Amino acid sequence: MNQQLIEMGQRAQEAANELAIVSTEQKNNALNQMADALLKASDQILAANQEDMDTATEMPDKFRDRLLLTKERIQQMADELRHVAMLQDPTTKIDRGWINKDGLQIIQQRVPLGVIGIIYEARPNVTSGASALTFKSGNAVILRGGKESLRTNEAVVKVLRQSLAAAGMPVDAIQLVKDTSHEVAQELMELNRYIDVIIPRGSQRLIQAVVKHATVPVIETGAGNCHLYVDKDADLQKATPIIINAKVQRPSVCNAAEKLLVHKDVAADYLPVIIAALRSHGVEVRGDERVRKNVSDVKPASAVDWDTEYNDLIMAVKVVDSMDEAIKHINLHGTHHSESIITENGARGREFQQRINSAVVYVNASTRFTDGGEFGFGAEIGISTQKLHARGPMGLDQLTTIKYEVTGNGQVRK
Amino acid sequence: MNQQLIEMGQRAQEAANELAIVSTEQKNNALNQMADALLKASDQILAANQEDMDTATEMPDKFRDRLLLTKERIQQMADELRHVAMLQDPTTKIDRGWINKDGLQIIQQRVPLGVIGIIYEARPNVTSGASALTFKSGNAVILRGGKESLRTNEAVVKVLRQSLAAAGMPVDAIQLVKDTSHEVAQELMELNRYIDVIIPRGSQRLIQAVVKHATVPVIETGAGNCHLYVDKDADLQKATPIIINAKVQRPSVCNAAEKLLVHKDVAADYLPVIIAALRSHGVEVRGDERVRKNVSDVKPASAVDWDTEYNDLIMAVKVVDSMDEAIKHINLHGTHHSESIITENGARGREFQQRINSAVVYVNASTRFTDGGEFGFGAEIGISTQKLHARGPMGLDQLTTIKYEVTGNGQVRK
Repeated sequence: MNQQLIEMGQRAQEAANELAIVSTEQKNNALNQMADALLKASDQILAANQEDMDTATEMPDKFRDRLLLTKERIQQMADELRHVAMLQDPTTKIDRGWINKDGLQIIQQRVPLGVIGIIYEARPNVTSGASALTFKSGNAVILRGGKESLRTNEAVVKVLRQSLAAAGMPVDAIQLVKDTSHEVAQELMELNRYIDVIIPRGSQRLIQAVVKHATVPVIETGAGNCHLYVDKDADLQKATPIIINAKVQRPSVCNAAEKLLVHKDVAADYLPVIIAALRSHGVEVRGDERVRKNVSDVKPASAVDWDTEYNDLIMAVKVVDSMDEAIKHINLHGTHHSESIITENGARGREFQQRINSAVVYVNASTRFTDGGEFGFGAEIGISTQKLHARGPMGLDQLTTIKYEVTGNGQVRK
Repeated sequence: MNQQLIEMGQRAQEAANELAIVSTEQKNNALNQMADALLKASDQILAANQEDMDTATEMPDKFRDRLLLTKERIQQMADELRHVAMLQDPTTKIDRGWINKDGLQIIQQRVPLGVIGIIYEARPNVTSGASALTFKSGNAVILRGGKESLRTNEAVVKVLRQSLAAAGMPVDAIQLVKDTSHEVAQELMELNRYIDVIIPRGSQRLIQAVVKHATVPVIETGAGNCHLYVDKDADLQKATPIIINAKVQRPSVCNAAEKLLVHKDVAADYLPVIIAALRSHGVEVRGDERVRKNVSDVKPASAVDWDTEYNDLIMAVKVVDSMDEAIKHINLHGTHHSESIITENGARGREFQQRINSAVVYVNASTRFTDGGEFGFGAEIGISTQKLHARGPMGLDQLTTIKYEVTGNGQVRK
């Protein structure tokens, strides 16, 4: 095992133990100092970023744009740190408390998870954003970003750690893995002794690699093969704006809709309308046989389409005989992220919500609302598509666990 | 991949989808039918158990006793099924709900996890008990018990499944893996496509093997190297009964205390008293140098002792200079299960609860209270020593996850 990594883990654990009992005010003060310091160090950070940009000339433009920092983007990073400082500290919350039959007072207190590993791509804003959220919730973080952003990350983390020191906080609450080799990433994923949970952020490929190789518990985020179902009792005036919004407002993200299921009773009337509307927004439509019977120039959807998350201006459309067929199709082919039914029938809307096995199930609304900010969580570290620990948008609360604090006056068990 | 196992997984998933929308009354009815049927089938079950006992002649007596069924034990199994029928159905609970800024109604509903795998040893009462808890919480279960109990488990599961059928429930909500080879156990632990979580129940060796080899998420249970700390401000009249209870009331279980730390200011007076008391209850005492200076005939504790869970009438005792030393020792050597401070000093009790990194932290009470029944959860499937998803005693609530049900009237994201 890599000795440097073990030492990072030990230091992180010690920092987490210290941080768990630091006051909210001290943490907020440190976050605001980090924001000030990021702005003050803009020139050094931009210089480091320029070096990264100069090296990463082979990267596709889309990824180069994510790697690039500007004065405005550093300002946004600082704003995010200040915003997190203003959110409620989740570790100040007591979920519940009660007195047991022996007179013991049992308090269920929220406490930090401990040490969180974040594995992500070449996106420097994640470096500060993930640090802010893990720090505010009382956790130590070990960051492992994409190798193309190493110099930028080093510059950002240096500033954050200086601010921690200046604010009297344990500096090892924020650490960066500087060896960006695959071997070290693999060892990081096996550091069970020191890391409580790993959250991968980025592409499906990255996330699946972490899920497969990690022995540390992972919170899986992000896969979204999201469905819209237009019921026979849909208000079609509501359906079109919802479908357009869910598909085109930001097609690259996980809560964008990828599939449209339409009840057979409304297919003949509605398919020409919605397909024309989608096309007018630049969407490529693919359809099953029954869709193509209604709109003949639609490209055929293959079996693979039903399991594919496009993250692009493509939508596959299918006609179903019943809501039951729609539900079974979604539970089988979906990624259990977000689905929506368009219907005016209350009983059917309720049944859809009950039977669909997804994190968020909508009636008459766009799937694009599956987001910590839209839910009112103030911030989000990701959207969990697993069932254990956290499901759906993950805010500060989801970066904590519980502890039972039990107070007695001499009780023994009979 | 084992085709039979895949088919079991598929059937379990289908059963779970059905079960998720079954009413509480129907589930309770089925549980009560299972209880009746177990009693009615006592003779067949006892005959199968006798065959298992006749085969398992090599087993140590302690394990043979756990394998053995009697009329009374079958009655207890039936009583447990009826008891679970009376507990609140966790999937009827709505944790919270709110209206977001766009007027969407967001409901956080508790829902079953889906399919739960239970890997356990040759204890037939776990077969019915775990089935009762997973079924009541709306989950399908795949049971893999110790090979020595196979015939008994087959007889019990046959009865449970017949009752499911008679009650109109999906029979594949309860399935038993009949091939008890290691290979099939390993494949079960990798059935990520169909199993949502695996809960191992039994010895530390079994649990660690599952944690190491499973790719399905595991809830780790049971390791308990639990500590008691006698503070300088302890009421020693309270300390002795708590220490004796925590050590000797049931030494083989995970919430029994294994270590005793004593503040140096009370060591000289208290060590002779508590060591004599422990010995009068048959406890072998091992001590560090400072303990042995006070009570010379105490056996020396080695470095290994501080990390060992004895599950036996043995206790290692150590003198500490301060509460800070006690806390650091416990956080380093403990298993983060249950610890208790004996003190009349309120501030120190509170600090101990805040700084100890364990699932349950007591002031002036025995660690033996860490138990679903004692906490008032009605039943327990195990005691989680991990931080993700569930921590401490796990009742029916911990066998569920959440789903967000969001209802709008045409909202789209801006």
